[in-house]
Amino acid sequence: MRTQVAIVGGGPSGLLLSQLLHLQGIDTVILERKSKAYVLGRIRAGVLESGLVDQLRAAGAATRMDREGMIHHGTVISYGDAHIRINFDAHTDKTVMVYGQTEVTRDLYAAREAMGGQIIFNVEDVQINGADTDAPYVTFRTEGAAQKLMCDYVAGCDGFHGVSRSTIPDAIRTEYEKVYPFGWLGVLSETPPVHGELIYARSDIGFALCSMRNDHLSRYYIQCDLSDSVDNWSDDAFWDALRRRIPEAHADNLVTGPSIEKSIVPLRSFVSEPMRWGRLFLCGDAAHIVPPTGAKGLNTAASDVHYLSQGLIQYYDTGETKGIDQYSAKALERVWKAERFSWWMTGLLHRFPNQSPFDLKMQQAEVAFLHGNKQAQAVLAQNYVGLPY
Amino acid sequence: MRTQVAIVGGGPSGLLLSQLLHLQGIDTVILERKSKAYVLGRIRAGVLESGLVDQLRAAGAATRMDREGMIHHGTVISYGDAHIRINFDAHTDKTVMVYGQTEVTRDLYAAREAMGGQIIFNVEDVQINGADTDAPYVTFRTEGAAQKLMCDYVAGCDGFHGVSRSTIPDAIRTEYEKVYPFGWLGVLSETPPVHGELIYARSDIGFALCSMRNDHLSRYYIQCDLSDSVDNWSDDAFWDALRRRIPEAHADNLVTGPSIEKSIVPLRSFVSEPMRWGRLFLCGDAAHIVPPTGAKGLNTAASDVHYLSQGLIQYYDTGETKGIDQYSAKALERVWKAERFSWWMTGLLHRFPNQSPFDLKMQQAEVAFLHGNKQAQAVLAQNYVGLPY
Repeated sequence: MRTQVAIVGGGPSGLLLSQLLHLQGIDTVILERKSKAYVLGRIRAGVLESGLVDQLRAAGAATRMDREGMIHHGTVISYGDAHIRINFDAHTDKTVMVYGQTEVTRDLYAAREAMGGQIIFNVEDVQINGADTDAPYVTFRTEGAAQKLMCDYVAGCDGFHGVSRSTIPDAIRTEYEKVYPFGWLGVLSETPPVHGELIYARSDIGFALCSMRNDHLSRYYIQCDLSDSVDNWSDDAFWDALRRRIPEAHADNLVTGPSIEKSIVPLRSFVSEPMRWGRLFLCGDAAHIVPPTGAKGLNTAASDVHYLSQGLIQYYDTGETKGIDQYSAKALERVWKAERFSWWMTGLLHRFPNQSPFDLKMQQAEVAFLHGNKQAQAVLAQNYVGLPY
Repeated sequence: MRTQVAIVGGGPSGLLLSQLLHLQGIDTVILERKSKAYVLGRIRAGVLESGLVDQLRAAGAATRMDREGMIHHGTVISYGDAHIRINFDAHTDKTVMVYGQTEVTRDLYAAREAMGGQIIFNVEDVQINGADTDAPYVTFRTEGAAQKLMCDYVAGCDGFHGVSRSTIPDAIRTEYEKVYPFGWLGVLSETPPVHGELIYARSDIGFALCSMRNDHLSRYYIQCDLSDSVDNWSDDAFWDALRRRIPEAHADNLVTGPSIEKSIVPLRSFVSEPMRWGRLFLCGDAAHIVPPTGAKGLNTAASDVHYLSQGLIQYYDTGETKGIDQYSAKALERVWKAERFSWWMTGLLHRFPNQSPFDLKMQQAEVAFLHGNKQAQAVLAQNYVGLPY
C-alpha cells in the first residue's frame, strides 16, 4: 500500500487532518487500533473554539454542528460568594460552540466516508519506520495479515498512549509534566442543564463544573481524590455533592436523574518536544495533554491540525517545506499558551490538599481581582474562546 | 501626657498619618525607638504610586518630590530575549514617581517639624496597654524616665519587628506567610542609571532589577542565595553578575562605580489579620510584608494610612465610627491584591531552586503571553501604578 500521508489514529485529530488534506487533493490512509464504535463511545469535552468550528466548516463536516450545537457568549466562574460572568462578546469577537467531541467525531467519520476516505480499523502492532529517512512506512497487522503502508509523511494522531510519540528516540525528546493531586468524577445524565452557560464553581469542598451536550443532556463534574472510585459514588451521593459546590440559586434548580455514564479522570499537564522528527509529525494528545479545566484538549489538537495541514498543503502545492519545517515551533508556541491557561485555571479553581493558608489567600485574591477588573476578565475571555492561530 | 492618636513608629507611615491628622486638627504624638539619623539611614524602595504622591501633596510634604522626583510612564520587563515595555499611559491614567523612601521620610520629618509635630526619638520599652478598653495608653521610657501617653487610639506603624502586632493576642490573630528561597543583593552607587526606566530582568542565572533614586544615583539588585553574604561580593563581582543578567544593549551602557551601600534582604510575603484590635490599628509593615518585586511595600502602607486617616478624621469630625470600623476589612482587601501582585511578579521573574522543567515552561509561557497580549500588559500596568483606594 502507498499513500501520501499516513495518519496513525482515527480520533477527531486524524479525521480532521485527513479530511482537510483530502479536500486539497492529498491522499491519506487512517489507521485506527480500535473499532469505530469504540472510538465513538469515548466521552470527551464539548466546548469548541471558533478556530475549530471554522475548520469543521472548511472540512464540510459542520452541517449538524451548525444545526444542533449551542453558541455560548459567556461562562460563569463562581468562587464562594463571588459570581463572575465572563462576557465573551465584551472582550473578544468570538464565541464558543457547545457540541460534544463524540458528535464531532461522528460527523467527521460521515464526511470521510462520504468522500471514500480510507480508514482501517482494528489494526494491530502498528510501527512507524524510517521516519528519519526519505522513505517512511508504517507496518501493522489487520485481520491477521501483515501490512506495509508506504508514505511521504506520517501524522501521529494516536493520543497519549499511542506509538507515535515513542517512535521519536528518547535522546531527541524532552518531556514536561505536572500531575495534579486530584481527579474529576464526571457524570452524564439525560437531564436539562442547570444553567444555559457552563459554570466553573470552586467551593470550600472543591471544584465542580456544570456543562452540557445539549438541552436534554447534561455533563457534570466534581473534583475527587485520585484514589477515589466510581463505586463509591451512588447517583444520589454525586448529586448531593454537586449541589453543595455550586451557587445556591443554581443548586435549587438542579434537575437530577439517573447517570448514563460515570467515570474518573486524573488531571495532568504534559508536553513532549519537539513535535516533529524527520517525516513524523505529532498532533494533539500524542504530544500534549492539558487538564480539562477550560476545555483546551480537543481545541489544541485542532490548532496542531491547522498548522500541519497548512504545511502539508503548501508542500504538495509548491514543493516548499517552510510550513512543515516550522510546524513544531509554531504548534508548540500555541500549545504552551494553552498549557499555561489550563494550568492557571486549574490552580485558580481547585482545592489543593497541601495548599498553605497563604496559597489559599492568593487564590482568593486572584478571584477578587478578576471579579473587579475588566482587563483580567478580558484575558480570561480571550484565552477561553481561543487565542488566534 | 495625653494625645488623641498615639503613633508607634516614626517611619514614613507614622509620619504621614501624623501629618494628615494634624492638618485636620487631630493631635498626635509619635514614638520612635531609634534616632532620626538611624531612620533616615535605612535604604528602601523608591517607586511611589500616584495615590501616595497625592497623599504627600495633601500632607504638604511634596515640594521637593515634585521638583526632584522623576515621573515614569512605563517600565521594562525583560526575560531572556523578550523585552516588554509596560506602557502606563496606554493602559492607565496614572504614572509612578521615582523618589527614594529615604527622601520621603526626610520631607515628612521637615513637614512635621515645621508644624511643631511631636516626635519622641530613642524611646525604650514601648508597651501598648488597654487597647481593648476605652482608655488605651502607651508606656515607654525616654532618657531613663518612665512615661505614660494616654490617648483615644493607637496607630501601630512600627514595622514587622515592632511591638504593635504582638500586642494583639495570638488567639485573635491569623498569620499568613510565604518565605521565598532566595534574597536580593542590593547596591547603591553614585552612577547614572543604566536606563531611564526601571528594568526587571530575568536571565538564566537569575533576576536583576535596575532602579534609581535620581540621575546620578543608581540602585541595582540581583537575586542571590539566602545563605549568601555581602562579604562574598566585591563591587566588580556584583557589576559582572548584573551585566550578565540584563539585556545586552543595556549591559553595554552600564556605568559602574564604587558601591556606597551593599546589603542582602530576604524575600517574604506576610499578612497578619485583623488589622484592628479595639483601639489599636496596624499600618504598613506592622501588619504585612511583600517581596520587593513591584515596589508595593511603602505604597501599601500608604493605602493603610489613607483608610485609617479617613476613618479617624470622620470620627473626630462627626463622632461616626463607620470608617474606623471598616478599616481592617477595607485595608486588607487592598493589601491582599498587592500581596497577590507582588507574589505573582516575584514568581514570574525569579529562578527558583526547585523549579521543575514544567514550572519553568509555565513561567516562560506567561512571559510569552504577556509579550503578545495588550490586556495582560494592562493588568500588569494597573497593578504596578497602583489599584484605586
